Amino acid sequence: MCGIFAYLNYHVPRSRREILQVLVQGLQRLEYRGYDSAGVGIDDGIDGRSIHVIKQRGVVKALHEEIQKQKDMDMDVEFDVHVGIGHTRWATHGEPSSVNSHPQASDKDNEFIVIHNGITTNYKALRTFLESKDHEFESETDTESIAKLVKYVYDNREGDLSFATLAERVTQQLEGAFALVFKSVHYPGEVVAARRGSPLLIGVKSDHKLSMNHIPIVYHHSGTDRDRQDRTYGDRQDRDRQDRTDGDRQDRTDRDTYLFPEDETAVEYYFASDASAVIEHTNQVIFLEDDDVAAVKDGRLSVHRVRRVSGDHSAVRAIQTLRMELQQIMKGNYSSFMQKEIFEQPESVVSTMRGRVNFDDDTVSLGGLKDHIKEIQRCRRLILIACGTSYHSGLATRQILEELTELPVMVELASDFLDRNMPVLRDDVCFFISQSGETADTLVALQYCRERGALTVGLTNTVGSSISRGTHCGVHVNAGPEIGVASTKAYTSQFVALVMFALLMSNDRISMRQRRSEIIQGLKTLPGLIKEVLGLDDEIQKLASELHQQKSVLIMGRGYHYATCLEGALKIKEITYMHSEGILTGELKHGPLALVDELMPIIMIVARDHTYAKCQSALQQIVARQGRPIVISDGDDVEDTIGSSGRTMKVPRCVDCLQGVLSVIPLQLLSFHLAVLRGHDVDCPRNLAKSVTVE
Amino acid sequence: MCGIFAYLNYHVPRSRREILQVLVQGLQRLEYRGYDSAGVGIDDGIDGRSIHVIKQRGVVKALHEEIQKQKDMDMDVEFDVHVGIGHTRWATHGEPSSVNSHPQASDKDNEFIVIHNGITTNYKALRTFLESKDHEFESETDTESIAKLVKYVYDNREGDLSFATLAERVTQQLEGAFALVFKSVHYPGEVVAARRGSPLLIGVKSDHKLSMNHIPIVYHHSGTDRDRQDRTYGDRQDRDRQDRTDGDRQDRTDRDTYLFPEDETAVEYYFASDASAVIEHTNQVIFLEDDDVAAVKDGRLSVHRVRRVSGDHSAVRAIQTLRMELQQIMKGNYSSFMQKEIFEQPESVVSTMRGRVNFDDDTVSLGGLKDHIKEIQRCRRLILIACGTSYHSGLATRQILEELTELPVMVELASDFLDRNMPVLRDDVCFFISQSGETADTLVALQYCRERGALTVGLTNTVGSSISRGTHCGVHVNAGPEIGVASTKAYTSQFVALVMFALLMSNDRISMRQRRSEIIQGLKTLPGLIKEVLGLDDEIQKLASELHQQKSVLIMGRGYHYATCLEGALKIKEITYMHSEGILTGELKHGPLALVDELMPIIMIVARDHTYAKCQSALQQIVARQGRPIVISDGDDVEDTIGSSGRTMKVPRCVDCLQGVLSVIPLQLLSFHLAVLRGHDVDCPRNLAKSVTVE
Repeated sequence: MCGIFAYLNYHVPRSRREILQVLVQGLQRLEYRGYDSAGVGIDDGIDGRSIHVIKQRGVVKALHEEIQKQKDMDMDVEFDVHVGIGHTRWATHGEPSSVNSHPQASDKDNEFIVIHNGITTNYKALRTFLESKDHEFESETDTESIAKLVKYVYDNREGDLSFATLAERVTQQLEGAFALVFKSVHYPGEVVAARRGSPLLIGVKSDHKLSMNHIPIVYHHSGTDRDRQDRTYGDRQDRDRQDRTDGDRQDRTDRDTYLFPEDETAVEYYFASDASAVIEHTNQVIFLEDDDVAAVKDGRLSVHRVRRVSGDHSAVRAIQTLRMELQQIMKGNYSSFMQKEIFEQPESVVSTMRGRVNFDDDTVSLGGLKDHIKEIQRCRRLILIACGTSYHSGLATRQILEELTELPVMVELASDFLDRNMPVLRDDVCFFISQSGETADTLVALQYCRERGALTVGLTNTVGSSISRGTHCGVHVNAGPEIGVASTKAYTSQFVALVMFALLMSNDRISMRQRRSEIIQGLKTLPGLIKEVLGLDDEIQKLASELHQQKSVLIMGRGYHYATCLEGALKIKEITYMHSEGILTGELKHGPLALVDELMPIIMIVARDHTYAKCQSALQQIVARQGRPIVISDGDDVEDTIGSSGRTMKVPRCVDCLQGVLSVIPLQLLSFHLAVLRGHDVDCPRNLAKSVTVE
Repeated sequence: MCGIFAYLNYHVPRSRREILQVLVQGLQRLEYRGYDSAGVGIDDGIDGRSIHVIKQRGVVKALHEEIQKQKDMDMDVEFDVHVGIGHTRWATHGEPSSVNSHPQASDKDNEFIVIHNGITTNYKALRTFLESKDHEFESETDTESIAKLVKYVYDNREGDLSFATLAERVTQQLEGAFALVFKSVHYPGEVVAARRGSPLLIGVKSDHKLSMNHIPIVYHHSGTDRDRQDRTYGDRQDRDRQDRTDGDRQDRTDRDTYLFPEDETAVEYYFASDASAVIEHTNQVIFLEDDDVAAVKDGRLSVHRVRRVSGDHSAVRAIQTLRMELQQIMKGNYSSFMQKEIFEQPESVVSTMRGRVNFDDDTVSLGGLKDHIKEIQRCRRLILIACGTSYHSGLATRQILEELTELPVMVELASDFLDRNMPVLRDDVCFFISQSGETADTLVALQYCRERGALTVGLTNTVGSSISRGTHCGVHVNAGPEIGVASTKAYTSQFVALVMFALLMSNDRISMRQRRSEIIQGLKTLPGLIKEVLGLDDEIQKLASELHQQKSVLIMGRGYHYATCLEGALKIKEITYMHSEGILTGELKHGPLALVDELMPIIMIVARDHTYAKCQSALQQIVARQGRPIVISDGDDVEDTIGSSGRTMKVPRCVDCLQGVLSVIPLQLLSFHLAVLRGHDVDCPRNLAKSVTVE
C-alpha cells in the first residue's frame, strides 16, 4: 500500500512553490499508507517538455526538507497549466531508498514518469523482456518496469497515440494490482491515471459550473475478436444496454464524453488514493473503478475502458459530493483505524495471495523464498519466533505446517526463546514474524540464530525493515499498513502467508495433492467468507452491549482454534482492559473448569473438524456446570447441545486449516465493540504503542 | 508411601475374625497412603509357630473380599495372645500385584514376614548378596531383601538373640528410608518395629494403669570402637546427660525399661503409619523417632537404639494423649490435605532424590532409566507431554534440559499434541508426565508415540499405573500419595525428577562439571530452603486477606519462572475460582500492559538470574503505569525499584534452575489462604476431580 497524489492546474496560474506545497500536503495526508520514502515529479521548464524528479528516503517531511534544499529551482516561476505527481511509499519490492522511490522513470531523461500503488506480479517477465530491448534498470521496484514499458510502447507506436490509449495498452500488459498515474514530456499538460485493485479517485475543483454531474465511459474497442465474441454472448440485458450505449455514442459530440467547466476555463484536478488528500481542496469527487483509465487533456477529464465487464451496468462515473471530516475520510466509513482494518480483511488477504497462489494448477510461488526453498526443504526443524499477535499466527498455522512439511515445528515467544538460550542448530530454519519487522526481541533472536548458522526467514509487513534486511530470505505479508495498535489484518495475512509457505513446501508432493488442492480452493473462497463473517457485525455489537460491563472473559478452543482464543483474548485485553484469557479446551478439566459458573462469560469456538466431538463434550461439561457459553461455530447442531443456556454465532465454513481466519474475526469485532462501549480510544489503548517501523 | 498397621493383643482374647477386622479397618484408615495392593499376615495355628499371609492387588476392600473367601480358615478360633500385621501399598518398586504386595516373606514357610513403608536404596546389593547365599526371590520389591536378610542373620546367629537385637542388626544394613514391622514364627507373640525416615507410632490400650507415662530408651552398645569414640567427643552437655543416663541404668530394674500395665495383664498395642488408624482404639500413643527399634515381648513394650545421636537429648519417648478427630489426624496439624502436602515438600523432594543423587561425587543415577539411558542420550529430540500441573513441570525444567542435554526440547499439552497429530519420529524420546499415571490424554499420546517408534519414558507418582506400565522405562517421582485435588508436592517432585534426569544425561560431560556440581549442591540445600519459604506462611496469609475479594490476579515472570506463573495461576483458578492468569513478562508490552492500573492485583516474580535486569525494567514499567506489584524475589534491591507503590516478599536463593521450586511455594500458599478466606473447600474444588489411579 502506498499513497498516490497528483495535481493538475488548468488555466489556474500557480507558482512552482504553490504546486509543490499542494503535492507535499497531499502526500502528508496519505502518509498513513506508507512512510518509507516519498517523491514528486514536476515540470522542469515552463513548456512541460522536461521533468524534474525529487525523491527522498523516509517520511514526507524528509522530502519536504529535500525540496527546500533544491538550489537551482526557481520557486516563483508561474505555470498556467501544470501536472505534478507525488507518491509516498510503503515498500513491497526493494528496500526503502531513494532509488526505489517513486516516481519511477522510463529513462534518464524522465520521458515518462509513473507513480504506483499496488504490486505488479509479472514485473520480472516484463523486466526481462525490456532488458532484452536494452532498457537499463536502476531500481529493484516492480514499478520501474511499468515506466520503461510505457516508453517502449510509445517508441514503437504507429501513427498518433493518445496518452489515454498509450496507458491502456500498457495496463493491459500488467498483472496484479495497481493504481497508476503517468506524466510525460511527450504529453505536456496532460495526465493519465488507471486502476485495478488499488483505490484511486479524482477531485474536481472549479469556480464554474461543470458540464455534467457524471462522466460517461468511453469504450475503446481495442480488444481481440475473442473479446467481442465474449461480449456478443454476454447476458441479454447487458447486450441491450450496450447496444443502446453504442447507439447513443454515434450521436454524441465531444462535449458529451468529457467533463469540463461550462466556460471551459480554469479547472483543477486532484488524483489521490483516498479522499483525505482531496477534501481540503474540493468535495466533488469521482471514484474510479477497476480497469478505468482516466485522462485529462486540455483541461477535460474523460474515463476510458477497453472492454465492458459483464455485470458492470454503470456506463457512467458519477460526480459525488463528499460530506465528511478529514479524519473521517482517512478512516473511510469507520470510527477507528482498527475497525477499518478489520473490514479491510477481505482485500488484505487477497493482497497477501496476489501473484502467489495459482488457483488453476494448485501451485504456490513465493518470490522471496525462491533462492532458498530447496535448502529450506532439506532442513531438520522449523522454528517460528515472534511476539504477541505474530506469535499467535505461528501457533495458528503450526499444525498445517507440521502436516504439509512433515517437519518438527516449534513456535517460540522471542523473549522466552532468548531467556532460555534455546539450542539452535545449523540445519534449523528459523522464521521471524513481525508486522513492523522491527520488534526488538524478535530482532535479537534473529541475530542469535544467525550466529548459530541457521537459515533465517523473515515474515513481515514492512519491506526494508530490520528483519527483512537481516534475514536470508523472506515473505512479505502485504496486508497494507496497519495503523490501529491492536493488530487485526496483519494477523490474518500472516496466517495466510504461513499457509502459503506450507503449501509451497509441499508443491512437489503427489500424496498431498488432494489436501493441497482443498486448501488452495479454500484460499480462493476465503475473501468471500471473510465478508460473510463481517456481516455478523450487528449481532456482535449486540453481544458486546450485553458483555461490556463484565470484568472477565474466557475464550476456549482447541486444535486449529487454540491460537484463535489466545489472539481473541489478547485483542480484548489490549483495547477493552477486561481480563480475558484464551484457554485450551483440552485443559478444561485440569483446572479452568473451576472458574465456570452461571456468571463467568465464556466464549467457545467449536469447529466442525476432527475435534468436533471433543469440543461438543467440553461444551456439555460447561453447560452441566451452569455455564452459559457463547459459541462461535460452523456447525449446525451446537444449539442442540447448549439448549437455552447459551447462544450461538454461526460462521461460514472453510477448509479446517483456514477456519481460524474466520473464527478470529468475530473476536476482533467483539473486542472493538466492547472497547467502544466501555468508552476507550480503540486506536490508542492505554500503556501500549504500535511498533514504529522507521526512525 | 505405604500404610503400615500391626495389632498385638496380649491376654485380651480375640477371635481370628476380630483380629482380621481390626487389621482391615486399620488399613482402610491408611488407604490414602497407597491403594495399589494390600495384605495381612496372621498366625496360622494357635501356638504362633506358623504364619498365614493373605495378599490382594487393588484397594483394601479387595483384600477384605479375599479374606472372606478363605475357606479353610477357622474364623472363630480365639487367640489370647496374637500378632497380626497389615500393609496397604503404594507401589515404588515393582508393579502392583499380589506377589509384590506386603507382607514380604523370608521364605516359603514364612519364617519371618515384614511390612515396609519407604525405599531401601541398597536393596540390589543386598539381593545380590542373599542370592549368592541361595535365597530365592519371588518379587520385584526392595522389601523382600529385608525379609530374607532377617532370616539370614537369624540363621547365622551365635547364642541367644532377642527379636529386637535381630531387627537392629538388620536395619543397620539398610540404606534409605523405612518404617518396618516384623513378625516371626521364631518369636511367637512378639513384634518388632523400626523406623528411619518414614513415620511410625504405637498406640497402647489397656484398662489398667500403665507402669509409666514415658518409656526410656535402651541403648545397645553394639557399635564399633569408633562409635564409642564419637560419643566420647560429643558435645559436653550430651555427654553429661549420657553419663547420667548410663548411671541411672545401673540401678534400673526391668520394670524401669519396659512399659506395661501395672497388673501386667491385658494390653493391646497398635503399630501404624499415622494416628488415624489408631485413634478409634486408643488415644495413648508413642511416636517413634528415627533409628528407634520398638519391641513387644510378653506384653511389654521397650524402645531400643544402637547409638545415641548427637543432639538427641530425649532419652525417653513420651506417651502422648491424642485429642483430635479422625479426619484431623489424617491431615495432621493441617486444615486440608492440600495444606499438608504443601508443608510436606521439604520431605517429599528428599524422597524424590533419595538414593539417586550422590552429593559426594556429584553423580545422579535413576534406576528406572538404567537400561535405556544410552539410547536416550543418542536421541535427536526430547518431547515432554503432559496436562495441567504436570505440563508446567515440563515447562519449568525445559531450559535446564536444553542446557544440559543440548537437545531440542519440546513441551506439549497432551490434548493439543493429539489434536495436531504432531509428527513424531523414531529418534525422538517422549516423556509422559502425570501424577496419577492415568491421565487420559497423556495415555493416548503415549499410545500415539509408541506406534511411531519413539522411545517412551514415564514420569509418574504411581508405580504400576497405566503410564508406568505402558512406557519403555521411567522415573518414579516418589512424592507420596497426593490427596488434594490441586497438585502441589507432586509438582515440585516432578520438577526435581526432571532436573535429576538432566543431570543424569550429562553425567559424563567434563565441560559441564562445574555447572552440574552447582546444581547438585543446590539440590542438597533445597529441602532446607523450602522450609524457609514455608516460613513465609503468616506473611502470605496476611497478603491473602488483602486480596481475597479481588476478581482477577495477574502473575508475571520470565525465564525459569514462566512456568511458576502458569502453575501459580492454575492453583488460584482451581481452588479460589478467581480469574488468575500467568503472563510471560517478556510479552508485557505486546498487550497485557493495557490491563495494568492501580486496581489490578499483579504478582511478579523477579529472580536474580540472567533475566534480573529485564525483570526490573518490567517492574518499572508497571510502576510507571500506576500498578502496585507484589514482588516475590530473591533480590535485595527490588524495593528500590517499586518504592512505596508495591510490596516485596523475600525468598531464599538457590541455583537459578532450582529457584522455580522456591518461587512456586508462596503461590501455592497464597492460593490456599485465598480459598480458605473465600470459604471454599480447598481439597474438593467445584467442578474438578483428582485423577483416580485404579478402577
